[in-house]
Amino acid sequence: MPVTDANDGRPLAGVTVIDITQVVAGPFATMNLGDLGAEVIKIEAVGRGDRSRSITPNPEYFDTINRNKRSIEVNLKSEAGQEIVRKLTAEADVFVESAKPGRMEAFNLSYEELREVNPELIYCSISGFGRDSPYEELPAWDMLVQAMSGIMSITGEEGGQPLWSGLPSGDLITAMYTNQSVIAALYARERGVIDSEWIEVPMLDAAISWLSARAGHTFGFDEPFPRLGTRHPTISPFGVYSCSDDNIVIAAGTDSLFEELCRVIDREDLLEDDRFETGTDRAENYAALDAEIEAVLENDTADAWIDRLQAERVPAGPINDTKTVWEDEHVQRRELHQVMERPGREDADVIDHPIHFTSLVTELARAPEELGESTADLLARLGYDDAEIDELREDGVVG
Amino acid sequence: MPVTDANDGRPLAGVTVIDITQVVAGPFATMNLGDLGAEVIKIEAVGRGDRSRSITPNPEYFDTINRNKRSIEVNLKSEAGQEIVRKLTAEADVFVESAKPGRMEAFNLSYEELREVNPELIYCSISGFGRDSPYEELPAWDMLVQAMSGIMSITGEEGGQPLWSGLPSGDLITAMYTNQSVIAALYARERGVIDSEWIEVPMLDAAISWLSARAGHTFGFDEPFPRLGTRHPTISPFGVYSCSDDNIVIAAGTDSLFEELCRVIDREDLLEDDRFETGTDRAENYAALDAEIEAVLENDTADAWIDRLQAERVPAGPINDTKTVWEDEHVQRRELHQVMERPGREDADVIDHPIHFTSLVTELARAPEELGESTADLLARLGYDDAEIDELREDGVVG
Repeated sequence: MPVTDANDGRPLAGVTVIDITQVVAGPFATMNLGDLGAEVIKIEAVGRGDRSRSITPNPEYFDTINRNKRSIEVNLKSEAGQEIVRKLTAEADVFVESAKPGRMEAFNLSYEELREVNPELIYCSISGFGRDSPYEELPAWDMLVQAMSGIMSITGEEGGQPLWSGLPSGDLITAMYTNQSVIAALYARERGVIDSEWIEVPMLDAAISWLSARAGHTFGFDEPFPRLGTRHPTISPFGVYSCSDDNIVIAAGTDSLFEELCRVIDREDLLEDDRFETGTDRAENYAALDAEIEAVLENDTADAWIDRLQAERVPAGPINDTKTVWEDEHVQRRELHQVMERPGREDADVIDHPIHFTSLVTELARAPEELGESTADLLARLGYDDAEIDELREDGVVG
Repeated sequence: MPVTDANDGRPLAGVTVIDITQVVAGPFATMNLGDLGAEVIKIEAVGRGDRSRSITPNPEYFDTINRNKRSIEVNLKSEAGQEIVRKLTAEADVFVESAKPGRMEAFNLSYEELREVNPELIYCSISGFGRDSPYEELPAWDMLVQAMSGIMSITGEEGGQPLWSGLPSGDLITAMYTNQSVIAALYARERGVIDSEWIEVPMLDAAISWLSARAGHTFGFDEPFPRLGTRHPTISPFGVYSCSDDNIVIAAGTDSLFEELCRVIDREDLLEDDRFETGTDRAENYAALDAEIEAVLENDTADAWIDRLQAERVPAGPINDTKTVWEDEHVQRRELHQVMERPGREDADVIDHPIHFTSLVTELARAPEELGESTADLLARLGYDDAEIDELREDGVVG
């Protein structure tokens, strides 16, 4: 819900973020900062804007990651444009950029330069590999990061090729670390631990940190974590199972869940079967166990089995796609699919912020804007008058 | 690097976190809070501990997500055990739990009860679906969340089954939202916006928020986002390509990157080919384009092609696995694989915190502990003397 006062429960109320990022990683990060109450000012290239504005479907692709931001078109190659960014930054708290290392220096918008106009600035640089990397000059693409980090190697069918996960995980992991780091820096600044800060978020390093327990497999067994489709190397029953009309997933990886599963499918004889006695036995004989389970599941529909299994608290559910997920009972009750109205334009479809606070609030305050929708407003706030704004437009400094 | 003083550059220096979570989501979250300088006190079940202590390989699985924590064994079913947790929480800032909704109430450790001993507490509840969900009683497993959220539906071979991504993404997304929310609440508390807070992080909702632009596809085209292996629906060349000895990935999704790629593989004739003129043409005729490219790549090794492509800044790279990733030049230079020494035990292999601060610091201060390693220390800090501690142990209240 929109809120208006400064000390109103929004965790980042009063925080202003200057956002010179595009595509997914940076925009998803700053959208979250906006959800938490920050004012986000999105600097976009004159006449072109964020590259994701031209990715199809348009504007839906852009809209899902750019609510709660004000769009201003500025030509960063012009001195007058750089001056506008400096003025905006002077009154801001956070500056996030995702240009290639060195690019912001070329625009006279480096950390060192902006700290001169704002000695309390939290400056955050997102890039594929960071400075001082052998890949510093390499453009970072999410799929490249998934490949180099090892994430692709553990995704895919057993015996098949490594697969890109359908989500741009490299970008999104980076976004989440960006926010964790920026908010931590704001907290440290508030407590006087720092005056100012420069944070560097390298996508590859962020993605590698997520290997976590998968890397543990390698540290312990000195072998790569295997690619097994939806099978789990040490847990069974676990994975995708066919019913009469559709697939479902089941994850019954403890003794008690296995017992409950066997009761629900009326196969308590499996509990007496030597092949399935312990968790280790079941993981070893997973193929035989899966065959026994599917032989029963094939006698009824996916919905019927899900109802019966969930009623006994066996972790089982449907494999939703990006269309059916919005019809899910939980998703409907939570109203996760939200529509934001935009005067004079079609409504924007967005996904609500997923976290529930009790005293604090998150907000969907501002629908995704058109390119440069707030240019005049923001320039006026900086003290430019109408004649000056017109001149800046004519000179191609703003759009 | 270990640091010792309070106001020493650690963003969360002086913050104490009580952690009653297990397996991946909660522990990965609190590990990050520890990296940022918080003291994390991990409450574990007497004699059993975090379930991930028994997941193979042991202790490597556990070690990768449990550094920077002190382990204390407490029986939460005993009143004396609950009293110990209350005393620890009275002096803490943050309390994170991942029990099923209602479970903490049964232990007399609900938000309402703990706020009485600590009116400034930030209390965070991680669960599969949160309260008031039709699935409230359903145990949350990462794979179930990936299935129900739609993530699985977009992962997998074209025409093949939906696949679990090898990473426990549902758990890890939840962990990142936990930290973003907890640190934002600490910031809000520091500024006097709130006294105290109860945060609820539902895994399913968190995972669905990551659909972002993939959901945009559905909002715009009214169809599910397709499952395409490593192919991108609107970008080509993009994906896995065979060289003479191994596969590589290439993502050359702009005109200029395509031009550079053609130059590197000495096929500038492709730039004159009508089928490949625009990005849309290339996406449409991706199969023909991929065949042309692979015909050249098959004449040399993966390493040779990666060197040539990267030298011209074409996004291309190897598909590392969880073993080869540590040999990567960038990963070696950053020393992302760290070894933490533990007196009397084998060293712990961990992955370094991925974010670089300039004034602030992160730390690998405390190697993953054995179950109950800090029980006596922490009880002594609360004022229990040796005789009392012995009695608590005899009574099975602590371990």
